[in-house]
Amino acid sequence: MKNAKLTLVGAGPGDPDLISLKGIKALRIADVILYDALVSKELLDYSRPDCQKVFVGKRAGKHSFTQDKINELIVQMAFSYGHVVRLKGGDPFIFGRGKEEMDYAESFDIPTSVVPGISSITLPGIFGIPLTRRGVNESFWVVTATTRSGKLSDDVRLVCQSSATAVFLMGLGKTDQIEAVYRDAGRADLPAVIISKGSLPEESACFGKAGSLSKLKELYQPPAPAIILIGESVGQHPEFYELLTQVNHATI
Amino acid sequence: MKNAKLTLVGAGPGDPDLISLKGIKALRIADVILYDALVSKELLDYSRPDCQKVFVGKRAGKHSFTQDKINELIVQMAFSYGHVVRLKGGDPFIFGRGKEEMDYAESFDIPTSVVPGISSITLPGIFGIPLTRRGVNESFWVVTATTRSGKLSDDVRLVCQSSATAVFLMGLGKTDQIEAVYRDAGRADLPAVIISKGSLPEESACFGKAGSLSKLKELYQPPAPAIILIGESVGQHPEFYELLTQVNHATI
Repeated sequence: MKNAKLTLVGAGPGDPDLISLKGIKALRIADVILYDALVSKELLDYSRPDCQKVFVGKRAGKHSFTQDKINELIVQMAFSYGHVVRLKGGDPFIFGRGKEEMDYAESFDIPTSVVPGISSITLPGIFGIPLTRRGVNESFWVVTATTRSGKLSDDVRLVCQSSATAVFLMGLGKTDQIEAVYRDAGRADLPAVIISKGSLPEESACFGKAGSLSKLKELYQPPAPAIILIGESVGQHPEFYELLTQVNHATI
Repeated sequence: MKNAKLTLVGAGPGDPDLISLKGIKALRIADVILYDALVSKELLDYSRPDCQKVFVGKRAGKHSFTQDKINELIVQMAFSYGHVVRLKGGDPFIFGRGKEEMDYAESFDIPTSVVPGISSITLPGIFGIPLTRRGVNESFWVVTATTRSGKLSDDVRLVCQSSATAVFLMGLGKTDQIEAVYRDAGRADLPAVIISKGSLPEESACFGKAGSLSKLKELYQPPAPAIILIGESVGQHPEFYELLTQVNHATI
């Protein structure tokens, strides 16, 4: 039997050069790589020629494997081939379900380790948008809009009342719900931005207000993956108000 | 005159292999590197022999340079030598004051770019602690305990009421204040962990409850840098309750 092992590796937000050196070293020695849709295919070039490479992400909007199936595959592959690298977009533990895969492997006594990744929450920095700014706010709050129940987290109502910048991951399909919460709280006027495909050549940012998220989405149709930021710190972008008043950015 | 340029690079949480490939490429071509105390010195080995390397961090608890002085230095060095890489621990925009340095350089028409980094908020993953877990919570919230005013952010009171995992950066000096907020909110019983020097060989994690943070700190004296996590997701660590009942972990 092979030396079964699982390493969860964060591939970063998109640009293949935003993987860590430690992640590259893991890819180089992997016997198996299980990778997601959001992972750059170029990263697979680091692998050995005899490495098994299996795509386990979504294809045409459909999961090729359920989470249970991925968990099983990790264990099967580890026992058959040895060192499995599970390559996940962003960081494996920030809404990456890395913990579930880790727990499952460990229940078979497979040793696990984690190589953190650059999360998509750092993408606003590329656009000069701070998550926090001294004198403006001291915190940010990260939520996935895609929950098990399909409902937006109740936490959003609390965030509205705070000075935290809200960061919504996978929120493109929930812009109307997000907008509604901010309207109800009387905070529709907070600066907002949708960042699409950040760190990739086709990256874009469109600016608006919390109350105009759906309109913004309709106008620009930013492709996924995208993150949505809402908060005063977004207004710190040097051209925020300028962009907002331009005809093609005037959404509110 | 040289081609003045500023690149803000995130060095990651400590382990020198947790810098991105893109960050390494920037270090290789830098004319000047300005680096912080939390940055691994090994990263400087990527630089050219004629690269100017300047330490601008804290020494023996004291800043060798004020933020204003660092801003000026960036501009001076860029005009004198060309490409300045500002190497910062973690991600340059997550409480890294990267935005201030960027804005200052841009006010002198110096072109800027950002290479995101692996933030210390991903460190819990190394210890198998998820920031969120399906069915447990859908959000996490990140705050710096070190604010301009010296006071803990008022946002903490709202977070107490949410299901978000709270992540305190630079919070070791504020454990008593953090504890007090959770006690007042009747949430002293929430699982908590202090992660010290995560990703470095001397990394450690000590587990307790929100209401026992100060005691935990007193017992283990975890060295800085450290992050503090509070929330139900911390209890997802497979040995959380076991560790808590051991004599030397029994803090509440």
